[in-house]
Amino acid sequence: MPPADKNRTKFLLDEKDIPTQWYNIQADLKSPLPPVLHPGTGKPIGPQDLAPLFPMELIKQEVSQERWIEIPEEVRDVLRLWRPSPLFRARRLEKALGTPAHIYYKYEGVSPAGSHKPNTAVAQVYYNKKEKVTRISTETGAGQWGSALSMACNFFGLQCKVYMVKVSYQQKPYRRIMMETWGAQVVASPSSDTQAGKKVLAEDPNSPGSLGIAISEAVEDAATREDTKYSLGSVLNHVLTHQTVIGLEAKKQLEKADDEADIIVGCAGGGSNFAGLAFPFAADKLSGKKKKVRIVAVEPSACPSLTKGKYVYDFGDTVGLTPLVKMHTLGHGFIPAPLHAGGLRYHGMAPLVCKLYADGVIEAVAVPQIATFQAALQFAKSEGIIPAPESAHAIRVVIDEALACKKAGKRKTILFNLSGHGHFDLGAYEAFLAGKLQDYEYPAEKIAEALRGVPEVKA
Amino acid sequence: MPPADKNRTKFLLDEKDIPTQWYNIQADLKSPLPPVLHPGTGKPIGPQDLAPLFPMELIKQEVSQERWIEIPEEVRDVLRLWRPSPLFRARRLEKALGTPAHIYYKYEGVSPAGSHKPNTAVAQVYYNKKEKVTRISTETGAGQWGSALSMACNFFGLQCKVYMVKVSYQQKPYRRIMMETWGAQVVASPSSDTQAGKKVLAEDPNSPGSLGIAISEAVEDAATREDTKYSLGSVLNHVLTHQTVIGLEAKKQLEKADDEADIIVGCAGGGSNFAGLAFPFAADKLSGKKKKVRIVAVEPSACPSLTKGKYVYDFGDTVGLTPLVKMHTLGHGFIPAPLHAGGLRYHGMAPLVCKLYADGVIEAVAVPQIATFQAALQFAKSEGIIPAPESAHAIRVVIDEALACKKAGKRKTILFNLSGHGHFDLGAYEAFLAGKLQDYEYPAEKIAEALRGVPEVKA
Repeated sequence: MPPADKNRTKFLLDEKDIPTQWYNIQADLKSPLPPVLHPGTGKPIGPQDLAPLFPMELIKQEVSQERWIEIPEEVRDVLRLWRPSPLFRARRLEKALGTPAHIYYKYEGVSPAGSHKPNTAVAQVYYNKKEKVTRISTETGAGQWGSALSMACNFFGLQCKVYMVKVSYQQKPYRRIMMETWGAQVVASPSSDTQAGKKVLAEDPNSPGSLGIAISEAVEDAATREDTKYSLGSVLNHVLTHQTVIGLEAKKQLEKADDEADIIVGCAGGGSNFAGLAFPFAADKLSGKKKKVRIVAVEPSACPSLTKGKYVYDFGDTVGLTPLVKMHTLGHGFIPAPLHAGGLRYHGMAPLVCKLYADGVIEAVAVPQIATFQAALQFAKSEGIIPAPESAHAIRVVIDEALACKKAGKRKTILFNLSGHGHFDLGAYEAFLAGKLQDYEYPAEKIAEALRGVPEVKA
Repeated sequence: MPPADKNRTKFLLDEKDIPTQWYNIQADLKSPLPPVLHPGTGKPIGPQDLAPLFPMELIKQEVSQERWIEIPEEVRDVLRLWRPSPLFRARRLEKALGTPAHIYYKYEGVSPAGSHKPNTAVAQVYYNKKEKVTRISTETGAGQWGSALSMACNFFGLQCKVYMVKVSYQQKPYRRIMMETWGAQVVASPSSDTQAGKKVLAEDPNSPGSLGIAISEAVEDAATREDTKYSLGSVLNHVLTHQTVIGLEAKKQLEKADDEADIIVGCAGGGSNFAGLAFPFAADKLSGKKKKVRIVAVEPSACPSLTKGKYVYDFGDTVGLTPLVKMHTLGHGFIPAPLHAGGLRYHGMAPLVCKLYADGVIEAVAVPQIATFQAALQFAKSEGIIPAPESAHAIRVVIDEALACKKAGKRKTILFNLSGHGHFDLGAYEAFLAGKLQDYEYPAEKIAEALRGVPEVKA
């Protein structure tokens, strides 16, 4: 290693270093993932149950036990528009904190859509196209996932229909325009384009919408049209697998930095950016190669699925239409407080992340909103980049760990995923700077109530 | 050169490849730049006239005839947070156009502020700090420059006061919040913080403000406070010199691509992003090393200073307070139509750019707004990145040149500066997608009228 590396800020890889295979952690779990169950029969679902919604290759990946899954050349050809993403050493943040810790961050905001989401969007659209699908439907809240999918559909020439939660559609027009710029059709949900939407509108014409309603609309759209499949931006196994390019690259980059991670940190809403960075490192822990690495998922204290939820079977959506999956859940009826990190307001968590948590492979921490934005501001002032509020949850824990290193006089290497930039979240920063943000109490009673609605399943 | 390079999309450089010297084109001009004149005496101004506003090192750089100016290590240390910026080969755009041309773009949107502006902001703040200045004032229109300067002041621990044109302050809150996140104080101009602002407000309490008024406020702020200097984001010689890191890097990157530029394209408002890319290539043209390279500045047809203006002495601001500079001007009283490319709505042009145009070293083209957004959309759909409306002017000409190559069956290499992303300009995209944009007629009469207001100067 040339000595110059020791002073570097950025660790870059060449396009040829984009991984050629995704890492599928299912191959290395201590025991198999609990099966997904049909909500009616309570029996494990099969590929045929999912076929109306997903192309067969993604259904295969969902249950694959192969450790490595080939990344098609056509997918890598799109990924290289922004990948490999840079690994940064946060030297200015280290200095501001006065910590002996080394802090690194993998920056996924370099994708044109501004987050890690396109990593799976591109792969999903590719497999759909290969199986002659010409149109994809999906839902989006604040718009991160919708814009990633819109861009990916545009690259492969597929039509894209996005059901965007009405309140976001009205309040966050920029994400909508971004999707339209890439050619997607975006409607406010509830819409009159589906039976599900019409039903909600009949009951309440002024409904602000919800992610649950938008999911219902997007699923109905796909289920009722021959040319259309449905696409999900997180939670599912294949989505998490697609995101492992993040961690696979980061491992190579840390090698270039001649460093080794002691602590891996990622925020976790559905779980995909966390998994993308963490799973390749978790592999070394599972294999016994690096037993001591700590892997920390960070969630908002207002929506603490891992730290306060129950590891039981529950519905993936809020309405109760999806198959039942075993995960840490606050109850599908739990409605989290109006946090600014929209991507972390999910009642459940990716089953793979939950399994690792249950098996003691990873840790979880919940952090409150104001402390999170304090960390975001300190990061922006040190490193320049204004982080997405979701990613800022990881930064909060990174700063806390770095300060603990300072106190203990220990030099540890901390790596986290800066999953996106905050260019479309500056309203949240304004509220923070004006002292208008609030912390939400840990809603113990609401969670207990929502958990009473979780269906009983004999696994 | 390894053959793999031939298929690459991105050409990256190492941090150690950040230039160590800026290129000062004054050393290579065919004849010296006409002097800047005092508006009262009509005589050339000296360093002492500028000393209240700028630190001495920048005043020296403004008139320096040295070809190379050392970049301080402290400046490079900040630049490496995002530099070297990537050079992209636009393979997907080439394919979409079916052109034999090679299209490359240097992407400056990777800076945390989202444009090329921080390249000079960091340098300017550094020299101010070195001369014990603790506070900097400036004006900003849509906010690109204000955010770059805010970020730079934050890194060096200086206070920053930004006078933001009131109509932008109200309509584009995100840029303002970005500045505040980095710690700047932002006020809507006209403000009651200055005599100039108070005067305007007394006459019209509802004044929407203008860049001219904001300049007056920022200059007064600096001139009346011992701790404060003033900072400009374009037009001046030292600003353009600081931007040459762009072209110096691009030259190295084209070498890595084993390619040579035939046509260099940049949009030109004040002239700094154009100059930043073009001047290092213009050097080869001036020296006779590469006589045939074409260098094209692109301006909006609604504000065509190079193509329709006169090369005469005029005021740099709209009010008529600055020294007189020889430049292509539409008359300092010319008010351009409300284009969405706010950064290109300037009545004049950087004197260095004008000199090269007058000497026949560079060309200029004016393009209309709708065709510009058509090019922006084609680029976004091909390459993913949504360009700033300013940069899209360059893209329009690049596409036209690439199509001319197709028609002629000629393979040329075109390089342009993608000076920023359009994340804060999506309102303009929405207007375009909705068919609500308009082209503005070439305002011959308005320009003729404004030109009658240009002061008579015997040079």
